[in-house]
Amino acid sequence: MDEFMKAAIEEAEKGLQEGGIPIGSVIVHDGRIIGRGHNRRVQTGSVVLHGEMDALENAGRRPAAVYRECTLYTTLSPCSMCTGAILLYGIPRVVIGENRTFMGEEDLLRSRGVTVEVLQDPTCIDLMSHFIKASPKLWNEDIGV
Amino acid sequence: MDEFMKAAIEEAEKGLQEGGIPIGSVIVHDGRIIGRGHNRRVQTGSVVLHGEMDALENAGRRPAAVYRECTLYTTLSPCSMCTGAILLYGIPRVVIGENRTFMGEEDLLRSRGVTVEVLQDPTCIDLMSHFIKASPKLWNEDIGV
Repeated sequence: MDEFMKAAIEEAEKGLQEGGIPIGSVIVHDGRIIGRGHNRRVQTGSVVLHGEMDALENAGRRPAAVYRECTLYTTLSPCSMCTGAILLYGIPRVVIGENRTFMGEEDLLRSRGVTVEVLQDPTCIDLMSHFIKASPKLWNEDIGV
Repeated sequence: MDEFMKAAIEEAEKGLQEGGIPIGSVIVHDGRIIGRGHNRRVQTGSVVLHGEMDALENAGRRPAAVYRECTLYTTLSPCSMCTGAILLYGIPRVVIGENRTFMGEEDLLRSRGVTVEVLQDPTCIDLMSHFIKASPKLWNEDIGV
């Protein structure tokens, strides 16, 4: 498997071990991970730190020129908030673990010129399928349902 | 002036006093402020805590039913990230201080059924005009330019 999607899955698994929602993300620039993170709703009570947002936050303040050369890897199709953050910073490429359990704003990303690749990775699908079955209320809270 | 926009402006002014970017926001439910915040880029090095995001974060974890009855007040037209967060949580109404110094994703909000009101408030315009003139580099960083 792609080493960066593997790192995003490791983040998702870390979140699960912490009792959280198993979604992870890494941001890659020039072949190197500059930020990694996972959903923090349970762990810190955050309503904004989805996996992608946590990875962005952990990457720290970067010049626009850096974001414009990054790829964001996420285990799950990005919701409208994470999509908006990708658009704000002009990240040109997003690699998505799966969109079977949740379809995010992939059409919006593509309509703004972002390259979107979906792997339909079995590990990502398993992680979310089990989580949604076990904790439907928590999952719904995370996607505003 | 509307008491809630006044509270959002107080948040923006607090941010300015802290050496930060003067954008503030409050979230109102049932006639009461349930979350208030301001941009934290300078203060905490955050790349995700725009004013609106900080207000959402400070409102804490809320049921979807609460967000769906909220109004978000923000001193400046919301960028794509904050717009995405508003859509994620299904906030139905957004009151904007001004969009003269920055035009956010108001069309996207409206296209998804969100009621958007723009006040073109002189205090909000002054706050941002002076800030952008004094700190153009910091401002560009905040909007990914």
